[in-house]
Amino acid sequence: MHQDFANRTRPQDGPPRLAQLRKLLQADGLCGYLVPRADAHQGEYVAPHDDRLAWLTGFTGSAGFAVVLADQAGVFIDGRYRLQVRAQVNLEVFTPVHWPETRLGPWLRAAQSGGGRVGFDPWLHTHKEITDLTSALAGSGITLCPVANLIDAIWCEQPAPPANPARIQPLEFAGEDSASKRGRLAQALRNSGVRSAVLTLPDSLCWLLNIRGSDIARNPVVQGFALLHDTGRLTLFANPAKFDADLRAHLGPDVTLRPDADLIVALRDLSGPVQLDPATAPHQLGLELAQRGTEIAWAEDPCILPKALKNPAEITGMQAAHLRDGAAMVEFLSWLDETAPKGHLTEVDVVRALETFREASNQLRDISFETICGAGPNGAIVHYRVTEASNRPITPGDILLIDSGGQYADGTTDITRTVPIGPVLQSARAPYTRALQGMIALSRARWPKGLTGRDLDPIARQHLWLAGQDYDHGTGHGVGAYLSVHEGPARISRTSEVPLQPGMILSNEPGYYREGAFGIRIENLILVEAGRPLPDADPRPMLAFRTLTFVPIDTRLILPEMLSPGEVRWLNAYHAQVLRLIGPRVSPPALAWLTRACAAIHSQSAA
Amino acid sequence: MHQDFANRTRPQDGPPRLAQLRKLLQADGLCGYLVPRADAHQGEYVAPHDDRLAWLTGFTGSAGFAVVLADQAGVFIDGRYRLQVRAQVNLEVFTPVHWPETRLGPWLRAAQSGGGRVGFDPWLHTHKEITDLTSALAGSGITLCPVANLIDAIWCEQPAPPANPARIQPLEFAGEDSASKRGRLAQALRNSGVRSAVLTLPDSLCWLLNIRGSDIARNPVVQGFALLHDTGRLTLFANPAKFDADLRAHLGPDVTLRPDADLIVALRDLSGPVQLDPATAPHQLGLELAQRGTEIAWAEDPCILPKALKNPAEITGMQAAHLRDGAAMVEFLSWLDETAPKGHLTEVDVVRALETFREASNQLRDISFETICGAGPNGAIVHYRVTEASNRPITPGDILLIDSGGQYADGTTDITRTVPIGPVLQSARAPYTRALQGMIALSRARWPKGLTGRDLDPIARQHLWLAGQDYDHGTGHGVGAYLSVHEGPARISRTSEVPLQPGMILSNEPGYYREGAFGIRIENLILVEAGRPLPDADPRPMLAFRTLTFVPIDTRLILPEMLSPGEVRWLNAYHAQVLRLIGPRVSPPALAWLTRACAAIHSQSAA
Repeated sequence: MHQDFANRTRPQDGPPRLAQLRKLLQADGLCGYLVPRADAHQGEYVAPHDDRLAWLTGFTGSAGFAVVLADQAGVFIDGRYRLQVRAQVNLEVFTPVHWPETRLGPWLRAAQSGGGRVGFDPWLHTHKEITDLTSALAGSGITLCPVANLIDAIWCEQPAPPANPARIQPLEFAGEDSASKRGRLAQALRNSGVRSAVLTLPDSLCWLLNIRGSDIARNPVVQGFALLHDTGRLTLFANPAKFDADLRAHLGPDVTLRPDADLIVALRDLSGPVQLDPATAPHQLGLELAQRGTEIAWAEDPCILPKALKNPAEITGMQAAHLRDGAAMVEFLSWLDETAPKGHLTEVDVVRALETFREASNQLRDISFETICGAGPNGAIVHYRVTEASNRPITPGDILLIDSGGQYADGTTDITRTVPIGPVLQSARAPYTRALQGMIALSRARWPKGLTGRDLDPIARQHLWLAGQDYDHGTGHGVGAYLSVHEGPARISRTSEVPLQPGMILSNEPGYYREGAFGIRIENLILVEAGRPLPDADPRPMLAFRTLTFVPIDTRLILPEMLSPGEVRWLNAYHAQVLRLIGPRVSPPALAWLTRACAAIHSQSAA
Repeated sequence: MHQDFANRTRPQDGPPRLAQLRKLLQADGLCGYLVPRADAHQGEYVAPHDDRLAWLTGFTGSAGFAVVLADQAGVFIDGRYRLQVRAQVNLEVFTPVHWPETRLGPWLRAAQSGGGRVGFDPWLHTHKEITDLTSALAGSGITLCPVANLIDAIWCEQPAPPANPARIQPLEFAGEDSASKRGRLAQALRNSGVRSAVLTLPDSLCWLLNIRGSDIARNPVVQGFALLHDTGRLTLFANPAKFDADLRAHLGPDVTLRPDADLIVALRDLSGPVQLDPATAPHQLGLELAQRGTEIAWAEDPCILPKALKNPAEITGMQAAHLRDGAAMVEFLSWLDETAPKGHLTEVDVVRALETFREASNQLRDISFETICGAGPNGAIVHYRVTEASNRPITPGDILLIDSGGQYADGTTDITRTVPIGPVLQSARAPYTRALQGMIALSRARWPKGLTGRDLDPIARQHLWLAGQDYDHGTGHGVGAYLSVHEGPARISRTSEVPLQPGMILSNEPGYYREGAFGIRIENLILVEAGRPLPDADPRPMLAFRTLTFVPIDTRLILPEMLSPGEVRWLNAYHAQVLRLIGPRVSPPALAWLTRACAAIHSQSAA
């Protein structure tokens, strides 16, 4: 079982640890210290070794940071974690701060009005973070001082950094060998006159070298750094213990493996310009290059866009993973529909069962994130993760929201379905239908090449908007091919200005959340591709989505008379395709359930 | 009759005028000269006095410019005017240049590779234009030299500048007296530490002073400049002959009227900071202030946003104007439907008839732009203006597109309807329905406060996109209240980043154009307002549109089975409202036609 439901931290551990940290601050002449949630690779998940924020404060959310001063300690958290932080930290010594409404700079200026030196670990903050904060503190008398990590200095039982074996991502799934990828990127470096690029993101590294790992839960990555040279050669800085002989043979003669610690030494030998990503590279790397006077070319990690444009083998793999995962989901939904209305299940039971159904494929490498399973009012908490403390019995009349996914060697899945338990809650039907209309509108969408996710986002929200409703999250995020379930650079959201391009895989997940009552979300993954030719189409190039997820969308919650003829056609065609593709892959009882779940619906006349 | 259909220019006049201009260039030591279409007020229309581009080149389009060098003369035109320019200019001496694909800077660098001095009239170019062009010419050896207008020097029969009488815009329609408007703006100037703002846009001036005029066709403005001081006092620089005793009394003691020519003198006396709009103010004004060392505060014309936010009186006036104009449109459409299928009408006949129906209200001050009336293939030319040369007979089976509007003392209208002449062209029905679906989607739209026209634009295009179709123009533009039919700052278009606010009035005009066959556009004006409360709405503030235009939308071109239940409901409710509001205002035969035209349609089941 990948997921557990334990509370890993205790509020009472905070005060003594905080006291220890403050002693160090005093000894070092610092007035404060920053404790981010990040590691040096800026991923969404961190290894236990890097879970310093949770160790110090008790707060285990996926985003946030603490600022420890002599007389107070702020824990900055966003809207998702307002309640969770109060349950997890000792409020006598920690002050939750609503971020980004309150930004770190102004807070520090007010809290430390006398000025002083605030320490930070330059490996855990990006160049951009430190530059922005330095600007925000200008004239305040507060200076930021890079220092060794003070949490590591006091954390006696700190787990070791991850050192799990790397494995080869076969060409069958990767679709392009590493030399070819490095050749393409090196050409781009030469075109921009850059000698080397520093890579610090594990999923960039794994994509570029066609390797995967298990250093981090949920994300199948190997932690390390790399220097990609304009020759196409690459120096990999990672714990050599992760790479056995087969792996080293796979890396080939143009990839040199050196221990992590050699990165800094190697940087010193580089001649510039050296490309560094201001938004993701540790501040320390920029400092090192600047100290030597090496010219820095600030630019986005060169793997980010190519990685997002999936090649035919990756697309085939993602499709295969979705059929496998779809079959597990259908077994699960069939079981749930049989079992849940009896009223004996809890959210934890459902999460465990779902993971068991996915495991039954014998191909599950990991789940792709902690399953979100919210019954009734818990479904309205957008980033709800069930724990033993929050676990809720599932009772007839509930709406149940389940958002989950799997990591397979050929692909990553992410799917949300919302189902009624027993008798259908009538008040959920209109908003469910509106969210579904948005999800269908995006699934069917076709648009002129060049538009961004921002331009498509309103199409998914328009039907909810008509009822004065909306959801406070993006409509979709990029998804990796057996990599991170949240992958840049494109998103479908109000703020995404990256043009959509063929090969990008995104989620399509409109939702609706009624506080204290229920949550609704319907999510498929979709692939951007060239629009197929149509009889009366203009000669302009257009793009469209292809759906990758094939699992029934609960029709009991739909109000069919709200749907347009085109929406009904899409839904019925989708369900026919689900039955055709998934039917042959499931057990007889699940097939019987699937056949019912995929029955066509009929719209009603508006007249 | 406001509109005429004559060709006002002749290609053969170009060469001798060009030769004269080149003599002047040589005498002045200039290698080239810029001839923009603009006047000093940067409006869409220019007075005959300012129609220098047409006089020199023969090109009469509403946008473009010429660059005259010793051995060539480029006429820069955008996509709308590719064909027209070739018909209007003498191609032996003028070279059409596709703008913005080819920009002026690079073109000049290539055409004048030896460098030299290019003259321009600093009253006819904005600060931004000259600054941008200067950057684009950096290092080329070409310098830009402000000189007196060289066209005026050789144009013997140049019409005098307009000097038509101004008239009072009554408080009943303006809704706020000028002192109050000036007070609000002066407060904003004081808040930003600015002493005076220079106003150069005639519609800003007219809005601020509650006056209207007829200096320019189609736009009921008085040409002039003004200085608004941070005290709320204003100095108006305009031809005093335009202002009779009533007008002067209306302006009141806090407005000082001085001749146009005094502006420069007055600028010299100002102490800074003086606010100037880089995008609209003549370059000359910035030069004058800079020469005196007066501090310039570059900012948008302070009237632009307040003018766009219509007050209750302006909204009431716009609604009244739309009912009056709607009745004229219904008389016209009823006549057209009776007459056109007989096959004896031309486009010019239709334009004349439409203007006559509008005149019959006895309240028409002007048409709000040259009517676009395109039959069959002419309808596919997006900015088609019929002339005696292009005039086309209207024959049964044609699709006819008519885009027109009126200027009334209480408001400005702009409406497009597309109608079948006799038997319905079946191939036009699907795209007509898709354009209508977009127009309905925008009419019904509700959205969270803060979004821009860019965010709503896809909602109007989505149904066309589904068929691989689109239109190469914005979805909507702002409209003034008895002012310019194209008014900033908000638009509904891919590039509009201005948040929509209650009180803004915009057009909603999706279209579809099949080259060589037909054009479709359906246009209503819509008002932004707070969304009315809905039973299950979130507590978030939302905005919505209220429709101002009430004229039947031709249902013969609709494929009802493509419509959603909500779309059918919207259309039937709209037509019921049209019949209720316009029915009592039209003649008995028109009422009979209107009743038929407003009959409810029935959607068909999708199953």
